[in-house]
Amino acid sequence: MASTLAEIGLIGLGTMGAALALNIAEKGFPIAVFNRTTEVTRRFHAEAGALAANVIPTESLADLVASLKRPRAIILMVPAGQAVDDQIAALAPLLDKDDLVIDAGNANFHDTNRRAAAGLPMRFLGLGVSGGEEGARHGPSIMGGGLKADWDRVSHILDAISARYQDIPCATWMGEAGAGHFVKAVHNGIEYADMQMIAEIYGILRDGLGHTAGDIGALFAAWNEGVLRSYLVEISAAVSEATDPATGKPMLDVILDSAGQKGTGRWTAIEAQHLATPVPVIEAAVMARNVSARLDERKAGEARFGAAPKRLAGADAPSAATLEQAMIAGKILCYAQGFAMISAASDSFGWSLPLPEIARVWRAGCIIRSDMLNDMASALTENPGRNLILAPDFAARLEATIPALRQVVALGALNGLPVPALASGLAWFDLMRTARGTANMIQAQRDFFGAHGFDRLDGRDIHHGPWGS
Amino acid sequence: MASTLAEIGLIGLGTMGAALALNIAEKGFPIAVFNRTTEVTRRFHAEAGALAANVIPTESLADLVASLKRPRAIILMVPAGQAVDDQIAALAPLLDKDDLVIDAGNANFHDTNRRAAAGLPMRFLGLGVSGGEEGARHGPSIMGGGLKADWDRVSHILDAISARYQDIPCATWMGEAGAGHFVKAVHNGIEYADMQMIAEIYGILRDGLGHTAGDIGALFAAWNEGVLRSYLVEISAAVSEATDPATGKPMLDVILDSAGQKGTGRWTAIEAQHLATPVPVIEAAVMARNVSARLDERKAGEARFGAAPKRLAGADAPSAATLEQAMIAGKILCYAQGFAMISAASDSFGWSLPLPEIARVWRAGCIIRSDMLNDMASALTENPGRNLILAPDFAARLEATIPALRQVVALGALNGLPVPALASGLAWFDLMRTARGTANMIQAQRDFFGAHGFDRLDGRDIHHGPWGS
Repeated sequence: MASTLAEIGLIGLGTMGAALALNIAEKGFPIAVFNRTTEVTRRFHAEAGALAANVIPTESLADLVASLKRPRAIILMVPAGQAVDDQIAALAPLLDKDDLVIDAGNANFHDTNRRAAAGLPMRFLGLGVSGGEEGARHGPSIMGGGLKADWDRVSHILDAISARYQDIPCATWMGEAGAGHFVKAVHNGIEYADMQMIAEIYGILRDGLGHTAGDIGALFAAWNEGVLRSYLVEISAAVSEATDPATGKPMLDVILDSAGQKGTGRWTAIEAQHLATPVPVIEAAVMARNVSARLDERKAGEARFGAAPKRLAGADAPSAATLEQAMIAGKILCYAQGFAMISAASDSFGWSLPLPEIARVWRAGCIIRSDMLNDMASALTENPGRNLILAPDFAARLEATIPALRQVVALGALNGLPVPALASGLAWFDLMRTARGTANMIQAQRDFFGAHGFDRLDGRDIHHGPWGS
Repeated sequence: MASTLAEIGLIGLGTMGAALALNIAEKGFPIAVFNRTTEVTRRFHAEAGALAANVIPTESLADLVASLKRPRAIILMVPAGQAVDDQIAALAPLLDKDDLVIDAGNANFHDTNRRAAAGLPMRFLGLGVSGGEEGARHGPSIMGGGLKADWDRVSHILDAISARYQDIPCATWMGEAGAGHFVKAVHNGIEYADMQMIAEIYGILRDGLGHTAGDIGALFAAWNEGVLRSYLVEISAAVSEATDPATGKPMLDVILDSAGQKGTGRWTAIEAQHLATPVPVIEAAVMARNVSARLDERKAGEARFGAAPKRLAGADAPSAATLEQAMIAGKILCYAQGFAMISAASDSFGWSLPLPEIARVWRAGCIIRSDMLNDMASALTENPGRNLILAPDFAARLEATIPALRQVVALGALNGLPVPALASGLAWFDLMRTARGTANMIQAQRDFFGAHGFDRLDGRDIHHGPWGS
C-alpha cells in the first residue's frame, strides 16, 4: 500500500468506474479503489500505466477506508438500486459521520431522495454523470445533488475531471437530495428524443428518398457544421459512413432494427406524467423503441398491410435543407419540453433547479452536448421562467423552421414514413400557440356524464350545462 | 330498524354511492346503508321514495354490520386511497373473517393489489365501476377483481344491477386482486383518448371548416347512427347542440377550453410505461389536457406566433366522410393499443385477463360503450393473443379508413390544427406495419457511445461496430 493517503476512494471498477478512476488519477488526485472481485482491482492497477502511481488498489472495504484522508470521500460506481443500499450498509460501520459517500451511478432520483431523507450515518451526495465511458475517462458532464456544503468539499475534484466548454467546467450542484439524478434523468429522456428524431430523418432519407447510408452520413456530417452541431449528429454521421468489416456493407444496413433501452427514457416519461408536464417528444421516442422490439408483430403488420408507399418523388420530395430545418425545429421543441419539465419539478420538489446552469453543464461531456445548448443557456439566463419557445432567439428560429417541420410531418403521414417524435413535437407546438383550444368539448363531455363542472369564458358563476341528468 | 336482514351493505352515500344503493334496492335486494354524516343517511332514506322499503338506514358501523345477513358483504364507496384503508381498519373489529368487503371506488389497482396481499382479516374484492352517476343508478359496467369464490358470492347482485347489452349483463370477474381496477384504469385511459379524438375532429370542423356548434352537433348525431355509434359521440352531439340559457349562445362557445382531470388517464399512461407497452393515443390525450390548462402560456404563444392559418379551403377541405373515417381509424388504433396493454399486464401480473370478456363488459353501461366493442369482442374471441389491427375485420376497416386518417393528420400538420391523438395513432400504425424500421440507427448510436452492442440482420455473432473507442 502506498504511504500517502488518497484524496478520494472509488468502489466498483466496471467500465464506468474504471474510466472515472483513471480520470481522477490523471488529474493528479491520489485515488484508492476497490472492487468486490480482487482480481479486477489488481488488473485495473496493473493496466493503469503511468497513472498507477496515483492509484491505491485495496482488497477490502476496511483497506479502502484506511487508505483515505479524513474526512473521507468515496464514490460508488455500482449498479443502481439495491446494490447501492447494500454498499452503504457495508460502509456504515467503517465510516465516521463526517465521511461522504457519493453515488455516481444511474440512480432513480426517488431512491436518492429516499437515501438523503433516511438519515444515513454519513454524508451523502447523488451525482448524475453523463458521457458514457469516453466521458467518464476524459471529461463527463456532472450534475450534483445533496447538501451544498458536501458538494463544495469535492467540487475541486469534480471540476477538474469534468468536461469543459470554452474552459468552463461542466460540473454543477443542482440542488438538494435527488436533484442531480433528476436532471440526469431529464438529460437521458432528451437523449432518447434526439436519437429518435435523427432516426426519423434517417428513415425519410433512406426509405423516402432512397439515399445510401454513405450519402446520409455525408449529409449528417455537413449538418454537424451548422446549427445542429452536436455529438449525436456527429456520431450519426460516423455510424452511417462506417463499413461492416465482415460483409463490406454499410454498418447501418446489417444492424437489426430493434432498439434496446435501460429504462431511463421511461423514467423521464413517468415522472413527467406525475408532474403533469408534457414531454410528448420523449414519450414518442420511448414508444418507438418499444415498437421496434416487436419484430414479429411488425413483420405481420407489413405482411397484412403491404409496404407503405414511402418513396417520395417530384414535388413531394423534401430538400435536404427542409429536413435539416425540421430537425432544428423538433430539437427546439423537445428541449423546450425538457426544460419546462425541470421547472415543474423544481416547483414540485422544492428545489431551485438552476435552468441556465443546466443548459451550460450539458454543453460538453454529455451525450446531448451541442452548441445550441449554449444559446439555450443564454435564453434561460434572460428569463428562466419563460418557456423556451417564447424566448426571442428561439421563437425566431421556430418561425423560420416550423414550416419545414409541417412539411415533413405531413409527408410522413401521407406516405407511411413514421415520424412520431417530430409529429408530436409539432402537435404540442400547435396546442401551445393556440389561445382558443378544443378542451371546451372535453369539459362539456365531462360535465354531461360526470357533472364535473366547467368554467366559462365570460366568467359567469354557472358551472354546469343545461343537459341535466 | 327493519326486521329483515339486508343482503348487502354500502358505506358512503355520495353521488356514486347513493346511485348504486338505489340501483341495488330497485333490483329487489334489501340494502343497509351508512354514511359518516348521519344526516346524509337520513335524507337518502327519506328521498328514496318507493325504494325506501328496501333500504335500511344505519347510524353507526356497528348498526350497519348488525343489519346484514351472514356472511356479510359491504360495498365501500368512499374516496380512493387512505379513506379505503381507514374504512377497512374501522370495520375489521366488527367483521368475521368470512365477511366480504368490496371496494367499488376508483382505487389505483396497485393499492388493490396491496390490500389483497396484505392478509386482511376479512374477504376482499376490488370492483371497477364505470358509467358515472347515471350508470351507477341504472346499470354500470362492472369489472371485478379478487378471489373468484368471493365474486361468485355477490355476482347475482352485481349481474342484476349492471348494464345489459343484448340481455347479457356487463359484469365480469377479471382476475385476482387488482385485476378489476386495472381493467377500469385502461377503460379510463381509452375514455381520455376517445374524448380527445372527438375534440380534435371538432377543432377541424370549427376552426378548419368554420362550422357552427349546431352544425357540428348534427354531424356527430349522424355519425352516431353509423359505425361510430357510441355514448361519447352521442353526448358530443348533445353538448354541441345545446344552447346556453344565460346567453343564448351555443354552450360549447361559452365553455372555457381548459380540461380538468382526476388523474386516471395519467395512471394508465404511467402503467403502460412500466409495462413497456405503447399507448401513444392515450398519452397524447393526457398531454392535450395538460397543455389545455396552460391558458396563459397558450395566449402568449398565440401572441408571439400569431393564429395558425387553420381555415381550410378548396381542395384542402376534408369531406365529412373523410373526417368520419379518420375517427374510425383512430378509434381502432387506440383500442388496439389498449387491448395490447391489457395483454401485457396479464403476462406481467400473472393474471389471465379475459380480453373478449373485457370488450363485452364495455359494450354497455360504461363511458366508452359502443357497438364497435361488440365487433372487437368477436375479433378477440377468435384470437385474443393477436393485435386487434391484425384481426381480419379490423384490418379491413383500417385499410378502408387509414387513407382518410393520413389526409386529416397531414392537413392538421400543414395548417396548425393540432391533432396529437390522431397523429400519434397513425405514427404507431406506421411503425407497426413496417418490417424494416429505423431503430438500427439507434442501436448504432448506442453502441458507438455506450458499447451497448446490437444484433445483426444476418445473425452473425458480431455485436459491436468498427468504431472502437
